[in-house]
Amino acid sequence: MTKIISFVGKSKTGKTVLIERLIPLFIKEGYTVGTIKHTVHEIAFPEGKKDTTRHFKAGASITTILSSDSFLSMGILDNINLTVEKLIDLYTKLGIDIIFIEGFKSKPFPKVIVANSKEDLDMIPKVGKIICIVSKEKLVDNIPCYSPDKLSEIAECIEREIKNNPSVNY
Amino acid sequence: MTKIISFVGKSKTGKTVLIERLIPLFIKEGYTVGTIKHTVHEIAFPEGKKDTTRHFKAGASITTILSSDSFLSMGILDNINLTVEKLIDLYTKLGIDIIFIEGFKSKPFPKVIVANSKEDLDMIPKVGKIICIVSKEKLVDNIPCYSPDKLSEIAECIEREIKNNPSVNY
Repeated sequence: MTKIISFVGKSKTGKTVLIERLIPLFIKEGYTVGTIKHTVHEIAFPEGKKDTTRHFKAGASITTILSSDSFLSMGILDNINLTVEKLIDLYTKLGIDIIFIEGFKSKPFPKVIVANSKEDLDMIPKVGKIICIVSKEKLVDNIPCYSPDKLSEIAECIEREIKNNPSVNY
Repeated sequence: MTKIISFVGKSKTGKTVLIERLIPLFIKEGYTVGTIKHTVHEIAFPEGKKDTTRHFKAGASITTILSSDSFLSMGILDNINLTVEKLIDLYTKLGIDIIFIEGFKSKPFPKVIVANSKEDLDMIPKVGKIICIVSKEKLVDNIPCYSPDKLSEIAECIEREIKNNPSVNY
């Protein structure tokens, strides 16, 4: 069953680098990992006159290029409503074991909070189970806290959560 | 209802440019258009150290970056089985009106054949309804044939097919 772990926290707290470091640990354990990242920045589409982007540049709302070993898909949300939930649905159908989500802090997904201070914690909406907090200092007593360099301990904590919850848990 | 039109033919017959020219005509008529393109070439993923590709480069099987107005998704098919049918399912859920598919000639989708000669036609598997043939010369008598420059006639022929078949017709 596909499991969802969301990484939330203010910008510049190290969410991307944490996910980047955790992915190989989970792959090593045999999991197939998919990720979904929320961004407030403009997305840079592939450039050039390559065939890859010609349908898209001609005005298609969504274009996917599919080869025998990979794919690339791009879209404009003017006329289509691609939500994180629809992506989770797709990832589940693709047989992804774990989905690491970066951002979407208001969604009720099980969360790893990445923070630098207690004030950072106050900014996280109180929805979804908090699995652990990743922070250089211990910020609260009642939730497991790990320094960002304790990667294998963070991974073990997440894996315990995954194993204890047999379904997509949100 | 989402409609599927597949453009098939040998390489270098002008499938991409035909789709590229048809897309704006259908958008003008109020349709939301999605495209799926099969390629035998290696797909060029976005370059650089941008956040966009960091999860993917760390080994994720599939990564999607989602902003408020667009998205970019990329994946390796080692551990996931993304088929054209799963993409059609996604596009349908996104409310796409017409899916133009380039390639996948063996799939039973309604087809526009792009060809230069009668020999080209022989290479097309006999699955799926043939809507019309796009070719500089008239190749057969029993199927509508259009020269590639007769864009509005080709679009009208496709639109008739779309209107006459009220469901995803494959």
